[in-house]
Parts: sequence; structure tokens; C-alpha cells
Amino acid sequence: MIAYDELMVFERETQALAQISGRLGWDQETMMPRGATEQRSEEMAAISGVIHARRTDARVGDWLAVIDDSKLNGVGQANMRHIRRAYTRTLRIPAGLASEQAKLHSIAQGVWAEARGAEDFSAFSPTLMQVLDMKREEAAALADGGDLYDALLDDYEPGAKAADLEAMFNALRPRLVALRERVLGADKQPAALDHDFDEALQMKLTRKLAKTFGYDMAHGRVDKAVHPFSSGSGHDVRITTRTNAADPFNCFYSTIHEVGHGCYEQNIDDAYLLTPLGQGTSMGVHESQSRIYENQIGRGQAFTGWLFDEMKDAFGDFGMKDADAFYATVNRVNSGFIRTEADEIHYNLHVLLRFDLERMMIAGDLSVADLPDAWNERFEADFGVAVDKPSNGCLQDVHWSVGLFGYFPTYSLGNVYAGCLDKAMRDALPDLDTGLAAGDTTAATGWLRDNVQQYGGLYTPREVITQACGFEPSEAPLLEYLEAKFGAIYGV
Amino acid sequence: MIAYDELMVFERETQALAQISGRLGWDQETMMPRGATEQRSEEMAAISGVIHARRTDARVGDWLAVIDDSKLNGVGQANMRHIRRAYTRTLRIPAGLASEQAKLHSIAQGVWAEARGAEDFSAFSPTLMQVLDMKREEAAALADGGDLYDALLDDYEPGAKAADLEAMFNALRPRLVALRERVLGADKQPAALDHDFDEALQMKLTRKLAKTFGYDMAHGRVDKAVHPFSSGSGHDVRITTRTNAADPFNCFYSTIHEVGHGCYEQNIDDAYLLTPLGQGTSMGVHESQSRIYENQIGRGQAFTGWLFDEMKDAFGDFGMKDADAFYATVNRVNSGFIRTEADEIHYNLHVLLRFDLERMMIAGDLSVADLPDAWNERFEADFGVAVDKPSNGCLQDVHWSVGLFGYFPTYSLGNVYAGCLDKAMRDALPDLDTGLAAGDTTAATGWLRDNVQQYGGLYTPREVITQACGFEPSEAPLLEYLEAKFGAIYGV
Repeated sequence: MIAYDELMVFERETQALAQISGRLGWDQETMMPRGATEQRSEEMAAISGVIHARRTDARVGDWLAVIDDSKLNGVGQANMRHIRRAYTRTLRIPAGLASEQAKLHSIAQGVWAEARGAEDFSAFSPTLMQVLDMKREEAAALADGGDLYDALLDDYEPGAKAADLEAMFNALRPRLVALRERVLGADKQPAALDHDFDEALQMKLTRKLAKTFGYDMAHGRVDKAVHPFSSGSGHDVRITTRTNAADPFNCFYSTIHEVGHGCYEQNIDDAYLLTPLGQGTSMGVHESQSRIYENQIGRGQAFTGWLFDEMKDAFGDFGMKDADAFYATVNRVNSGFIRTEADEIHYNLHVLLRFDLERMMIAGDLSVADLPDAWNERFEADFGVAVDKPSNGCLQDVHWSVGLFGYFPTYSLGNVYAGCLDKAMRDALPDLDTGLAAGDTTAATGWLRDNVQQYGGLYTPREVITQACGFEPSEAPLLEYLEAKFGAIYGV
Repeated sequence: MIAYDELMVFERETQALAQISGRLGWDQETMMPRGATEQRSEEMAAISGVIHARRTDARVGDWLAVIDDSKLNGVGQANMRHIRRAYTRTLRIPAGLASEQAKLHSIAQGVWAEARGAEDFSAFSPTLMQVLDMKREEAAALADGGDLYDALLDDYEPGAKAADLEAMFNALRPRLVALRERVLGADKQPAALDHDFDEALQMKLTRKLAKTFGYDMAHGRVDKAVHPFSSGSGHDVRITTRTNAADPFNCFYSTIHEVGHGCYEQNIDDAYLLTPLGQGTSMGVHESQSRIYENQIGRGQAFTGWLFDEMKDAFGDFGMKDADAFYATVNRVNSGFIRTEADEIHYNLHVLLRFDLERMMIAGDLSVADLPDAWNERFEADFGVAVDKPSNGCLQDVHWSVGLFGYFPTYSLGNVYAGCLDKAMRDALPDLDTGLAAGDTTAATGWLRDNVQQYGGLYTPREVITQACGFEPSEAPLLEYLEAKFGAIYGV
């Protein structure tokens, strides 16, 4: 298999270049001098051009034509699955469209930010129309006669179908709406934090939390950034967090969330380094790891008991009477307009709204002009309050301005997967909470490493979740978990 | 001139990729997690491969064949001078030699470090022989019948000839040896620092020093690293420094030195951004900027008066009775084995020794086996003391292990140029010291920006220095400056 070996050498170099491109993105958000923006965009364009040229290189087509996948072992076949899929998708997009989109998105992001600042949707709508038109053109090219939205979704969640997600989300939605109504109507409401938390001490404790969750500082680092993110694969996986004196949970749970992403990348089998298998298998599975670290483990009663003691050690008395009150405060539910600030119950309602609207836009059933009304109507139906201004409504997220259609549902799919994994993990490890109550996450993170993370891109997203759980994934475990948890906290 | 425009677009992308490669080097020394070394070396190899492929791309040859330089303006002709020179040099090196050298150098650096740690030259000599053999092969290919050493020197100082440097250095050497003997034999010897200087306060003052010398923090940043360096061109020029509680001058003067390099890059005319003119014109001219910032300005009596007050404000009384005593301590001369720790008098004696020995090695007149004896004999002749161990002798510098032959003389050439520029600048600005005594460097740094830095690679190294000074560069101003300065401090 000379062709396969040659292809893998070529692919390895491309992967290395992609890692460099990712590291530049990290640098831009953390270290780059503010006056370097323009030069950096030329540097990014140069390396993107190099990577794109390699991804469409005719030699790849020649190698693919002569490789007989059936003669390869499982790893080889998985590599070929990724490479063939990426090559086919790249070639389907008309020459010029990708670079036109890149240019448009970089302008559109600025237009969106300005329109949001001015609370003026009409300042953004002509640009959003252009983005949507090009996205539909891209989708038509990718779909090759199939469903347009599925073609876009496949970029983030290979193999997923919108119709399946719709069925799952339609089962989630009414029970989440009912749960939020019960919880918000409960007599018992947890207190909010009311204290000033030193930001340097937050960073110190956040680093301890990262290590507590198994994040390997020899192959990563934690810095501050405006928006928390994780970046890189293999031996260099960096995360960021942020601090706010009034709200240390923002810092701590952003960190634990990004640690979930980071550990997934760090724990992939070293044999897959710089190959197509050396990364998380999909956005949904990635989000399942960040969410189970953050919520099912990090916001669970056992672990918050330990965190309460750590916070008392770090900040002194901050006005919480005991671990139970602290647990309730950590999990405090409140209705709000903003997705990224939402609690576990409201979060998926935000995502489901976006999924339904963007699917209609891609299908041509909802125009950009009608978007604000559709958003506001749906929001009021699910959240019980009217949107007061565009920045709290359809202008709140950056995603659509940069062409990310098909990405939103992977957030909720990740939550659904996290629910399934949590159920399977607790069945396998009945004593899990004993360790977590002592700040020892090794059983939980070890189970996730062994059953999900180590495989990287070896299996398809659905395969890896099904194998880990021993059952086909569904929304049921997530709903049971949420109803049990918040029912107990709120006594409803 | 379609061919010229196409070539410049291609060159611009290559320059952008080279900036990325440089930034990875910065990241490796400042931010990279320690476990990422191996992965990083693959990433570096991948981007180096991309850049090398572009530098040898047949299209460049095609463009060069049809471009008529005489039809271009001065900037265009200067661009072509750089591109033609680089292309010719790259093509002369046999296929495979460059990559074999890259591999050997990365191994040799480890072998050198281990041999130095073990004080065992014989553990390094077989590897150094290999490095030298390949370097001579490279030199023969580059020289095309000319002088081998000149062919290597041309990489760092285009147009310079070893014979000219030799004449200059032969004039320097006896007067430096005589000066060091007078100074070290003087009755009056400045006190050494004897105080503990808080390292966080050192970093705070070092950032103030960087700004005082005109370093633009909107287009750069200051971090700590094991070895101070500057990195990047255009709008993203980063520097590093280090701290040592006992020796704040190491921090401050490393910073001022790197600020000299950094300001040269930051102050190049914006029109040359990401073109062959968008970088310092040679290592020698670069070093002239770092050295004049550090020594003629930073260690001058006027500026040290201001620094003395700043240090008293930052650290309190640190045992210096007055500004004169402080000035003498800053400029304290002491004989030592290590080049990087040498004062202004001894530094060039270190460099001259290396220049003579490496020239003999490249010419085949000095074998690796005979290197330690040759080094030790020369050292004793110039410094008056015998080398006690290899790490204080011919194993002290990393340069030869990584094939840097022809680089050392640019350090002294930079000092010679700094001497010339200082003379010209003081003739043009007779009141210079008034500003410097108040911590105002704008007149000095403005003169250097206008007369040297802004031109980037527009002129050849010798041209830019000659135009700035109004006279042909020679070693005389440096010698006069050193003899006057140290004669006054030591009363000799």
C-alpha cells in the first residue's frame, strides 16, 4: 500500500499545518498585540491558502483512486473514511465560493457587531441575506440532490440527519418548558451570590480545578480571554477562561467546560497524533464531554460539596450557610434572553429555537426579513417573556454572521449524549459520588477517557456514544436527569 | 510588469508564512507547554517545508527570467535585489543538503548541550566534524569558485568580505587588549551591586524602559524567556528578557538591547510590510541598533543618571552613593570567560577570537581536533587568563553546533557601526545628553529611525550606514568612544 503510506505522510503535514493555524487563532485571542490585526489577517489567509491547496491537491485524488480500503485494517479504514469524506466535500464546493465566503464572513462579523451595538437589525439584514444566499449555494453543491440542511450539518456532525434531531428535540421541548415553569413557580428559590471574589484567586482556584479534572498542564495551559475556548489537538491543547469579581462560577464552570473539550483532545490515543483520527469525532461528541464535565459532574451535589470547601478556603466566608445552599445556588435557574448565560434547563430551549429557525431559512421557508418576528414569537412561547431588544434576540449570537448554519444543534445533541453517558457511567460506577465528594474525579474522567475520548476519530459519533453507553442514544436520560435534579432542588 | 506584480503577490504570501514560522519560534520559548516539543518539531518541519518549496518554486525562476529590473523604480529594484539573491543562493544548494543539515543541527544541538554539561569536548567533536563537513560543502556550492567563508558570511551580512572585516578587526584587537589591561590595572575599581532586587519590580521597570526607548506596545509585547531575543517584523514584533534578583542590569540591558532590535523592525516604512524590504537589512546593521540603544545610549552617563533615580524609586536605597558611582558600576569591566556576559571592552575580543578560528576551520586550516588548543591559546593571549574548562572555552556557544559559521563577526561589525552612528548622531544633535539625562530618548531614537531604521532592506548594509553617517564606516569611532569612556571612568 505505497499510495496509502504516501497519502498519510501528506496528510500528516497538512494536519501539522492545521495545528499551526489553530495556534495562531489562540494567539490572536490571548497574546497578540492589538495593532497586529491587519497583518495577522494576511498571515491567516496565507496559511489557509496553503492548507486549502493541499486539501484540493490532485495527488490526493490520485491516491484515493488507487487505494483499496478493504485491504486496510480498522484504523486505516477509519482514516480513509475521514479523508474521502473531506476530499469529496471540498471538491464539491465551486472554485471561488469558499474564498468569497471567507471574505464576506469577515466583513459580516463586523457588520453584525455594529448592528448589535446599535440595536438595529435592519443594518444587518442585507448582509445576512448575502451570507444566507451563499450558504444555500454551498449547501446545494454539497447536498448533491439531498437535503440542504443535512449537507451543512454533516460538517459538524458527520452522519447526523436533521429529521432525527427534530424528533429528539420535539420530545425535549415540551418537558423542558414544563420543567422551567414548575421550577420558576416554586416557593423555594435559591439565593444568588452576593460577594466580591478576588480575580487573581479565581484564576488560582480555576487552575486547581483544571488539574482536578485531569487536564494535563504539561500538554496545555490556561489563559484569560474575552470568550472561553479550547484550541489544539495532541500534545498542545490550550484552554482559556475569564473572570468577573461578582461571578466566580462563570470562571470556574467555563474552565471545567473547556477542560472537558481539552481532555477529550489530550486523551486521544497517541497513535493517532497528527492523523485524521487525532481529533474529537464530532462537535456533538465534543460538547458531550465539555457538558458532562461541567454539569453532570461539576454541578452535581457531590462535587459542589468539595468546591464549597475550596471556595471557603480561597475567599473566606462568602455568605453561604452550607453545602446544600451552595449546591442550590450553583444550579440556580433563571429565565434570561442570552443563550451563553443560560442554566441547564433553559440552554436547550435556546438551541432548539435556533435549530428550527435556521432550518427554515436554509429551506427557503423563512426570509431574513421575517426572522425577528419569528424569533420573538417563538421566544415568548417557550420562555414566557417578550424579547425587549435585538441584542437580546436574534442579534445575540455571532454564528449566522460567519456562516455557521448547522452548528447550533450540536450543542443540544452534546447535552443529550452527556445525559446518556452519565446514565451509563453511573450504572458502571455506583460509587462515583464518593470520589467526587472528595474532589477526586479520576473514576469519572477515567471512564470517559476509556469509553469515549481515547478513540478520537476512530468511530463515527453515533458509534462511539452507542458503544460507550451500551444503548442507542436518546433524549430520555437527559430529561430524567434534569427533572430529578431540579425537582429535588426546587421541591417540585 | 505583470510578472513583477505576480512575483510580489507570491512573495508577500511567503513573507506572511515566514512571519508565522517566526511566531512559532517565539511561542516555543515563551508559552509552549513543555510536553509539546516533539509535536512542535513536526509542525515546524511542515511549515519550513512549505516555505522552502515556495523559495525554490519554478514559477519564481520564470518570473525572474522575464523581469527587466531596469524598468523598475528604486523600491522595485531593491525588492529584486533581495529576491534574485535569495533564489540564486537557494538553488545553488544541492537538493537534500539543506534537509540533511536541518536534521543534523537539531541532533548536534543536543549533543553539544550534553557535552558541555559533561565538560567533554571529545563527546562533541565527531558531531562538530560532520557539521563542519556539511557546512564546507554548502559553502563550496554557494561560493561558486569564490571564497568559502565569504559565501557563508553573505547569508548574514550581504556584500561583506572577510578580508575587509579582518583588516578592521586587526585594528581593533591590540587597542582593546591594551585598554583592558589599563582598566583592569587601575587603582580605582567600581563597586559591584550587592542587593536583592525584586523580580516583579524589575519586570515593571523593564517595561517602562522599553517604552522609554520608543518600543511600541501596541505592536509588540515583553515576556520572560531563558535567553532574551526579539522576533517578528512589521506590526507584531515581540521581545523577551529575563530576571535575576542579584543582577537587575541583566534584565534592563537585555531589554534595551532587544528593544533596539525590535524598534528597528517596528520603525520600517509601512509601505514595505510583508515585502523583502520589510526587515532589517543585515545582522550587522541590526546589531548596530541593539548595541547603540544598549551601550552608547543606555550605558551613557546621561541616561544612567535618570536610571539611577528610577531604580531608587523602584527598589529604595540599594547601596549606591551617587549617580557617578552608579554609572561606574553599570560600566564595570571584569575579565570573564563567557561572551554573553562580557562588558563593552571584552565583548569584541570574544568575537574576534571566534571569527579567526571559524575562518580557519572553514578554510581547512584548523581541524576540529585542534580547536580546543587553538581556542585556549588565543584566549590566554587576549584575556591574560587560562581557560579552566570547556564550558568556559570552545563549548560555550551554541552557534557552531547549529551550523552558524559566518554569523559571529556580525556582532562586532554591529558594534563598529554603532560607534560610527553614535559619532554622527552626536555631531548632528549636540544637545542629545540633555534629553537623555531626563529619560527622554526621542531625539536619539528619532535620529536612528529617520537615518537607519525606516529604510528596512531598501539599501545594502554598507550603504545605509554610510548614508546615515556621512562617512565610510571604520573601527576608529568605536575605539575612540571606548578609550574615552573607560579612560574617564577608570582614570587611565
